[in-house]
Amino acid sequence: MKKIELIHSPALLPWYNLQGKTVVVIDILRATSTMCVAFHTGVNKILPIASPDECKMFKDFDFIIAAERNAVKVPGFDMGNSPFEYENPFLAGKNIAFTTTNGTKAIKMAKAMEPYKILIGSFLNITALANHIITLDKDLVLLCAGWKDKYNLEDTLFGGALIDKLLAHFEIEDDAALSAHCLFLQYQNNIEEIVRKSSHAKRFTLLHVQTDDVSFCLQQDLYSFVPEMDGEYIVNYFGLTH
Amino acid sequence: MKKIELIHSPALLPWYNLQGKTVVVIDILRATSTMCVAFHTGVNKILPIASPDECKMFKDFDFIIAAERNAVKVPGFDMGNSPFEYENPFLAGKNIAFTTTNGTKAIKMAKAMEPYKILIGSFLNITALANHIITLDKDLVLLCAGWKDKYNLEDTLFGGALIDKLLAHFEIEDDAALSAHCLFLQYQNNIEEIVRKSSHAKRFTLLHVQTDDVSFCLQQDLYSFVPEMDGEYIVNYFGLTH
Repeated sequence: MKKIELIHSPALLPWYNLQGKTVVVIDILRATSTMCVAFHTGVNKILPIASPDECKMFKDFDFIIAAERNAVKVPGFDMGNSPFEYENPFLAGKNIAFTTTNGTKAIKMAKAMEPYKILIGSFLNITALANHIITLDKDLVLLCAGWKDKYNLEDTLFGGALIDKLLAHFEIEDDAALSAHCLFLQYQNNIEEIVRKSSHAKRFTLLHVQTDDVSFCLQQDLYSFVPEMDGEYIVNYFGLTH
Repeated sequence: MKKIELIHSPALLPWYNLQGKTVVVIDILRATSTMCVAFHTGVNKILPIASPDECKMFKDFDFIIAAERNAVKVPGFDMGNSPFEYENPFLAGKNIAFTTTNGTKAIKMAKAMEPYKILIGSFLNITALANHIITLDKDLVLLCAGWKDKYNLEDTLFGGALIDKLLAHFEIEDDAALSAHCLFLQYQNNIEEIVRKSSHAKRFTLLHVQTDDVSFCLQQDLYSFVPEMDGEYIVNYFGLTH
């Protein structure tokens, strides 16, 4: 059987080998959830970028530019990181240059380690993602984006939920994946309750985030496609349904 | 209320501030458990050391030298890292120079970050440890030694067990502590069952470890003292009962 490892933070990547493996990047609140919304709206491709300064340059190349830091939109950018912003039909066919506190950084770091594929994970497409991972049939690494290189609850919980869908085809390789699956088993019937106790949900409350991004991002299987990296871009080839 | 943070791996220490805080170093299988056994036997002090080469030099200074790497005793040393070795009455009054794969490294790294105090944590002294932490009344960091800079289950589970004893006096600050407490709540009645599924317990099985170190290290409250760092040494001033 193929194996599953889970990494709690991009800061731990140097202790892992991604070569030849499928990597799922997980930033439930909110980057990888928001990317799924964007592709559902019909965005053409997304360019993940490490810094707002670099991201801003792409305005001159006919990109929509989007930047979030510390859970808020960066001034001077077209868009932030709330999934609701990405439901705007104006975005259909557009290209987006995107930088976020944790998610786009995790994607860039994983890419540098030459995995077989990088997939975009969220509750919004979890079943399609699980089915695609099974088809790829490679060892699997679940890379949680975390929060500023620290552990976060919602990414690990999603890792556990995804593992639960894969256990007929994969075996758990490390304690991080084992614990994530335990966490999911304990909270599978009240995911929102435990995520509302997480530090990131509390951060939204402190920031008076108006939209209910937490509830939105915890919905399962709104979409049946799986965004993936192709070169420098995130695209949506597999299971495209919109 | 004072706050509790939990760190899964010494590799994540650069993202934390330990100054002015109580730090508990946790290496359940086996370094911090074994240190407690050593003090129960009457060892005078323990010098944690990063490398076997450096550790060996202390043989000339009337130390017992102990070294473990990859779960086995390093050839040429007096002792390894099994708790049963440290029950030998010959050790009473002796000084030990000690190097292990994960635990002594975590202690050395924490010390460099100038915390208020560094305490040695294990199930063997968990209640005494909790009471001492409450008396100190400082923000608390639980530092899991992990396995070669990766997450391990048993250290996090112990962190959750310790948090459970502190919640009347401390509040959970981060998602790592929250998840550790969830893990403990789920497995508090069958700790040994889940630890036997951990990668380190499996490692012992592969190595044909003859003694049952796992069962031994999961016993609660054999001892009512709390080893702590004093300068370069680990000593046993508090609650000394042997």
